[in-house]
Parts: sequence; C-alpha cells; structure tokens
Amino acid sequence: MRLTIFTDYTLRVLIYLGARQPEGGLATIGDVAIAYGISENHLTKIVHHLARQGYVETTRGKGSGMQLARAPETINIGEVVRSAETDLAVVECFEPGNFDCPIAPECELRRVLGRALNAFLGVLDGQTLADLLKPRARLVRIFRDAAKRRTRFTRIRRAAASVGRTRS
Amino acid sequence: MRLTIFTDYTLRVLIYLGARQPEGGLATIGDVAIAYGISENHLTKIVHHLARQGYVETTRGKGSGMQLARAPETINIGEVVRSAETDLAVVECFEPGNFDCPIAPECELRRVLGRALNAFLGVLDGQTLADLLKPRARLVRIFRDAAKRRTRFTRIRRAAASVGRTRS
Repeated sequence: MRLTIFTDYTLRVLIYLGARQPEGGLATIGDVAIAYGISENHLTKIVHHLARQGYVETTRGKGSGMQLARAPETINIGEVVRSAETDLAVVECFEPGNFDCPIAPECELRRVLGRALNAFLGVLDGQTLADLLKPRARLVRIFRDAAKRRTRFTRIRRAAASVGRTRS
Repeated sequence: MRLTIFTDYTLRVLIYLGARQPEGGLATIGDVAIAYGISENHLTKIVHHLARQGYVETTRGKGSGMQLARAPETINIGEVVRSAETDLAVVECFEPGNFDCPIAPECELRRVLGRALNAFLGVLDGQTLADLLKPRARLVRIFRDAAKRRTRFTRIRRAAASVGRTRS
C-alpha cells in the first residue's frame, strides 16, 4: 500500500519551497532536483500540477522560477494528497462504477476499509505544510549542503573535461 | 494507494469460508472462484498463504477441501492485512535500508505518514472476521445464488455441446 511517486514528490517540492522561503528567492526545478537527488523530468509535471492547484506560482523569462503561492499554514497536507493521488481506491470495489464483486452491497469489509482510509486521511488533514517545516533550519542546511556538493561535483567534472580537451 | 489484489482476495476467501461455516462443509478453490467470479489460478497461492499462516486448514484426497482453522472471532483483520500485504511502505523512505532521500533524518512528513498508516491499520486491528460476517445470512444467499447461476450455465453449455455432437 503506497502513495504514488507523484504524490511523494509533490510533497517534497512543497517542503523544499517552504524551507527556502522567504529569504531564499525563486527556486528552479533544477534546484529541487539537486536538493533531493531526483530527476528533473519527474518534477516538471509535478510543478505544473502544483501551479494548477494554486499551491505554487511560477515566473517566466529572465530570473524565472517558482515559489509557494500561499502561506505554509494554509496548505493542508490531506488536501495536497487528495489532489495528487489519483487512486484512493484501497480495493477495486471503491472505484466508481465497479460492481464486479457480488457481495459489494452487503460487504462489511468495504465499510471497514472506508473507515480505515478516512482515518489515514484524517491524520493528514490535521497537518499543514507549516507543521512539516518545523525543523526548518536543519532542512535549509541539508538542501544547502546538497547544492554545494553538486557545485563541487560540476566543477570537478568541468576541470576533468578541460584537461581532456588540452591533451587531445 | 491500494491494497494488493493478493490482500483483497485473501480477505474475500476468509469471508467466504466464514459465511459457509459451520454447516456448509469443506469448500474448494472452485467454490470460492464461482462465488466471486474470479480465477482459480489467483486463489491457489492465496489459500496456500492462508494455510501457512494458520487461518485455513486444507484436507487432501477424497472429499478434499478447506475450512477456517480458527473461530472467526479470533481472526484479526489487521493481522491478516499485515501478513498478506508485503509492501506497507507508504513512501520509499519507509523501506528498510532506503536512505536515498537526504531529508529523511529530519523529515516530519515521514513521521506524519507513519502516524497515518498506524491509524489505517488501527481501524483494521479493531475488527475480526466475525465483524465482517455480520450480514451472514445475506452473504450465504449471494454465494448460493452465484453457485446456482454457475450450475445452470454449466448445464446449458453441456446441453449445447451435446446437441453439437448429435448433429455432427
């Protein structure tokens, strides 16, 4: 029983942007990719989704980037998960219009699983992005260190490439 | 976020066997397949799992079949789900030994999702198979009707095949 990678990364983008604000300025998809060591390809669709849902605002052109569109206290984690997770059908009879299981109309299991799912989402409904940002100073340090490591790695790679060009 | 088909069918087999007892006698995998309209292939592994976990006892040879090995009141649904669902890692950092996400040590989200998963399982921990069998009379009727429909269908198919043989 897993949340999709899409939902997982959606939450991670919000945590990154929340930790970066207010003084960190606009962030790029590249910044988030470096911070978590994940692919930019994955993130493009996620940022688009977050912008469409009104959680993130993006700026185009020179100095382009993104930032939270709302205060972290107003971003409810249960709502974010519901908007990102397309499949909250814990079992197939939860799918709208799926009546394949003959006991569905009498099924206590279905009701119990519905209560369990509500309990899961209920915990998330009690949390905002601000709650996830409580260890903010430590998160900022982790993200900064990841960016530094990445910059060092890029410099070493460029230097190696330049040595290669000189020799050839 | 879904339970696996394996877990879903595991619970359905237990409901079938519980509804059938005590007067229904031993059941076969074919009976369960007919009752739910699902494939016998799926069910073989599930019955093996349930027997290994001590929920079901199987008898071989003439009059072979299976039945619950324990009273429905002693079969806890949370335990059944934990034993059937191999992947309860809601996000990847829940996997033992997976430390890929750099913020894992400071991650409030991880803790919140852990609490949400516990809330989900907590609801199931409060239920036994006996609770799922409360509408037992109606379940028995549904299963009996499914078996009747299946018998009628088999008769019609045999009759059609016999007409085909007579003509050829």
